[in-house]
Amino acid sequence: MFKKLANEVKIIEVGPRDGLQNESVSISLEDKLRYIELLAKSGLQVIEATSFVRTDKIPQMADAEGLFAKLKMKDFFDRIDLPCLVPNMKGYELASNVGVKEISLFSATSDEFTKKNINCTIDESFQRMKPVADQAKLDGVKIRGYISTAFGCPYAGEVSAGKLAKVIERFMELGVYEVSIGDTIGIGTPSQVNEYIQDIKSVIALDQVAMHFHDTRGMALANVLVSIENGISSFDSSSGGLGGCPYANGATGNIATEDLLYLLNSLGVKTGVDLNQVVEASKFILEKVNKTSPSKYFQTLTK
Amino acid sequence: MFKKLANEVKIIEVGPRDGLQNESVSISLEDKLRYIELLAKSGLQVIEATSFVRTDKIPQMADAEGLFAKLKMKDFFDRIDLPCLVPNMKGYELASNVGVKEISLFSATSDEFTKKNINCTIDESFQRMKPVADQAKLDGVKIRGYISTAFGCPYAGEVSAGKLAKVIERFMELGVYEVSIGDTIGIGTPSQVNEYIQDIKSVIALDQVAMHFHDTRGMALANVLVSIENGISSFDSSSGGLGGCPYANGATGNIATEDLLYLLNSLGVKTGVDLNQVVEASKFILEKVNKTSPSKYFQTLTK
Repeated sequence: MFKKLANEVKIIEVGPRDGLQNESVSISLEDKLRYIELLAKSGLQVIEATSFVRTDKIPQMADAEGLFAKLKMKDFFDRIDLPCLVPNMKGYELASNVGVKEISLFSATSDEFTKKNINCTIDESFQRMKPVADQAKLDGVKIRGYISTAFGCPYAGEVSAGKLAKVIERFMELGVYEVSIGDTIGIGTPSQVNEYIQDIKSVIALDQVAMHFHDTRGMALANVLVSIENGISSFDSSSGGLGGCPYANGATGNIATEDLLYLLNSLGVKTGVDLNQVVEASKFILEKVNKTSPSKYFQTLTK
Repeated sequence: MFKKLANEVKIIEVGPRDGLQNESVSISLEDKLRYIELLAKSGLQVIEATSFVRTDKIPQMADAEGLFAKLKMKDFFDRIDLPCLVPNMKGYELASNVGVKEISLFSATSDEFTKKNINCTIDESFQRMKPVADQAKLDGVKIRGYISTAFGCPYAGEVSAGKLAKVIERFMELGVYEVSIGDTIGIGTPSQVNEYIQDIKSVIALDQVAMHFHDTRGMALANVLVSIENGISSFDSSSGGLGGCPYANGATGNIATEDLLYLLNSLGVKTGVDLNQVVEASKFILEKVNKTSPSKYFQTLTK
């Protein structure tokens, strides 16, 4: 018998941002727009649209302002949440100017990782995020927090639930409505996920937690299963399994939205998302980036 | 918290038979021997060595007699079990003549599948197996039963736990010591696995059940997790994820022994098997068949 599962799970689709940011093939603004439109048609309620970052660092996201301006004209704009990643006040201002209503801020569980990723310590990352969060709250902009390397770091090695809990607390102090706990290098295992969920309960309500798994070692779905059995009801995923992190070696394989949906559907958990329509979106974008999907479900369906 | 997990899990390595049978590249007897030797070095206690089948149907297994004769000369021969698949009395006689001490017999949950696979109904398959099982018992040869398409059939579609239970009962009547429940087309989901395990408990003790998952839709490890949480302690797997079934379309992807071990190790479940040594065996054989591994763990390790 399963432990009590959530009746409903929220999926945060990260393909257009986390999925595409890493791709060397430059995708046109129109194709990104079409991709997001296809995803929106599937019933997804949250789609991370883009990031307002330094264009010399992540050239794929250089069209963020133009893309968001176009998104505002779409009929789904008022229906769904389209969070955008911002690394600092400059990014926030750009996002805010084009009418972004939800931002994602990010840090990690190890100084080694934040130094490589955003050239500062964890402490400094929160000093940098504080004025952004304060301004966002004044502007009525929702804030989501990302924690990278939550289950292990490519540079610092092991992480502890205690370390993770401390970073979660700092995000809660910033005023985020949700924290996404990222297994950036896909090293987390079901027993670790189980243990960490027990340990973070004292600092955050589980309905404010999203899990962000990578399938690097094939554990993503088992980790989802353990998470949902333990009261988690929000998951980040990327259509077609697109993406990874440019600063984490071996970090291929965001969990595919299709695999996540296949599992959730089989468990009788509602998501409001049409799996076939997600596959259509994935087919579209995979052709543009000229890649095959690492999702086994997708491969089976399309072979 | 996890439900009570087994302290120890038995892994039945099926790479040399189930893994290789499908490969079009002909592998030499010496290479098969070396592969099994490398697997034996890992601490695996059960390795399905070969099958005594019609050589026009499965040419890869045409060297079964010669291979087994060589295996008998290896120092690990008395230490580990080396079951061999036999489809009928003729196969049994060949196996028996070279000193095979354990055989696997097989059927499925749908007549549609057995007709395509072995050209007979389920009933007829048991009529065919009965004299083989009787002779094996007289000879003191152990018998294992395989049930294909236990969670869904490519021809008949849905299967029920009731149908599965009936085939299990018939195998128990044959005198098998273990039944391997095979998700031949990799369509089973955690909820289905959970439900089926509850439903078969009345016809078989769970320590006589092995689960045989395919990762076709990426569910294999989640299915293992659910199985072990529900009292299953034996699993079939194939090193490197080699293999599939030649008669089942889309049935790629036996669960990789490496992925299974990574999960079990992380759960603190003992297997007595050295993951690194399995990887060495997989590297050896994958080079011979000129394939990459579908195992994400393997890919991560070797890239």
